[in-house]
Amino acid sequence: MPKAELIVQPNSHEMSMIRVFNAPRELVFKVMTDPKQIPNWWGPRQYTTIVDKMEVKAGGLWRYVQRGADGSEFGFHGVYHSVVEPESIIDTFEFEGMPGHVLMETMTLEALPEGKTKLIVSSVFQTVADRDGMISSGMESGSNESYDRLDEILAAL
Amino acid sequence: MPKAELIVQPNSHEMSMIRVFNAPRELVFKVMTDPKQIPNWWGPRQYTTIVDKMEVKAGGLWRYVQRGADGSEFGFHGVYHSVVEPESIIDTFEFEGMPGHVLMETMTLEALPEGKTKLIVSSVFQTVADRDGMISSGMESGSNESYDRLDEILAAL
Repeated sequence: MPKAELIVQPNSHEMSMIRVFNAPRELVFKVMTDPKQIPNWWGPRQYTTIVDKMEVKAGGLWRYVQRGADGSEFGFHGVYHSVVEPESIIDTFEFEGMPGHVLMETMTLEALPEGKTKLIVSSVFQTVADRDGMISSGMESGSNESYDRLDEILAAL
Repeated sequence: MPKAELIVQPNSHEMSMIRVFNAPRELVFKVMTDPKQIPNWWGPRQYTTIVDKMEVKAGGLWRYVQRGADGSEFGFHGVYHSVVEPESIIDTFEFEGMPGHVLMETMTLEALPEGKTKLIVSSVFQTVADRDGMISSGMESGSNESYDRLDEILAAL
């Protein structure tokens, strides 16, 4: 599948990514919200991802830990504001390496013809600088690697 | 106390309000996070505010209902991402009259000299239009009425 389209306006708090998956919406939603599948696709391949918490419901907490081959660990956590199966999730996201810097994500899945699904992830950050820092951290290639892995899982199911 | 300062840049997802209270930070935090006090200050005086849920911790849900004299009701709800006593709260906020439109609030309390406290509430919206709609809904006068009521409670304590 083609890579994700990154949408970034100058001097904005927002960043969006759009990617099309070759699988029906219900299946994409199911895989993305399955704690057992997270280690198989979330994050770059070079890290081992551990799901510490993942309660997919309003008020549920999530926390993932990425572990490198050298034993280094990076934690990420947040809380679900809403979960509307199979169409949307709104949650918060904090990288524990930058505590106190939080963004809100709105994930939407749209059913397309021929059993495809469009994923739109729109994030708003507390500051424009936080957003720009996220973009310059290599987020785009990291996200695409995650979505490549998700593509592979969807193709295998 | 002077009214809140509203900070709004054109074409931005963000809106901030700053207001100074004549009370120490610990007390302002305590009153703002006390479910028993919410009906005494949250929202305009013409409404009765009912606390349906208010679990002030990460992952806790909150939901308030405002009831008018004519029996009309307006619900608001969200979830706490983080609560750091007595200095900050990050949460989400959804007006149930516009379901699916969610904002993230970062509330910060700064201790000032002479036992005063500066409250900064910075909100980021999913879209600029959502922010502009909130501003044109009379949010500024509504917030100031809430903060006037909070001032009165703090003065009485």
